[in-house]
Amino acid sequence: MKIQAAETVEAKPVRIDGAAEVTMRLLIGPAQDAPTFNMRLFEVAPGGHTPCHSHDWEHEVYVLGGAGEVRSPDGQVPIAASDCVLIPPNEEHQFVNTGDETLKFLCLVPRDSR
Amino acid sequence: MKIQAAETVEAKPVRIDGAAEVTMRLLIGPAQDAPTFNMRLFEVAPGGHTPCHSHDWEHEVYVLGGAGEVRSPDGQVPIAASDCVLIPPNEEHQFVNTGDETLKFLCLVPRDSR
Repeated sequence: MKIQAAETVEAKPVRIDGAAEVTMRLLIGPAQDAPTFNMRLFEVAPGGHTPCHSHDWEHEVYVLGGAGEVRSPDGQVPIAASDCVLIPPNEEHQFVNTGDETLKFLCLVPRDSR
Repeated sequence: MKIQAAETVEAKPVRIDGAAEVTMRLLIGPAQDAPTFNMRLFEVAPGGHTPCHSHDWEHEVYVLGGAGEVRSPDGQVPIAASDCVLIPPNEEHQFVNTGDETLKFLCLVPRDSR
């Protein structure tokens, strides 16, 4: 068993083009020998957002807190705590903080995504 | 994009031998065409527990609330909100609610696990 509290994992700024005020903590991944998929925790400050992009792997998202929206070809959909979202491979998407508090969500990806 | 609030997903009793007072909600899985892994939400009532067992796929767990412990060959480790746990394939494990409130955790598994 490998166990750690999320807040003890370093929050690294996301420096991808189009990201603003976002950090990522790699909670479960190569360091834990995760065999199939990686668990990451994203924190988006008020006014911040992830890049609007697409890639050939999926996201599985669980919203932990804050208020925001997901922008995709389906439109702009509000998200809040307990919402779970599947972004399928190759679908454009962006997570935006529309509230006054940090938007926090888990986002899991297959092990071999980049 | 497929989105739903966790509480709108049916909580089904876990009827595996050795489970007590546990429900599971399949948040992201075959119904959403999840390509690689499935997201499930477990709720364990006070005094309840998951079965003590092992299998050839991993668990990736994120604790949402409540108090409990994980029992494994490594011993009994307390868990609370924000703890993240990797149970590697073939390691015996059991999640036990040791508190007065519902123990809630996400537990993700590869798509083809049973």
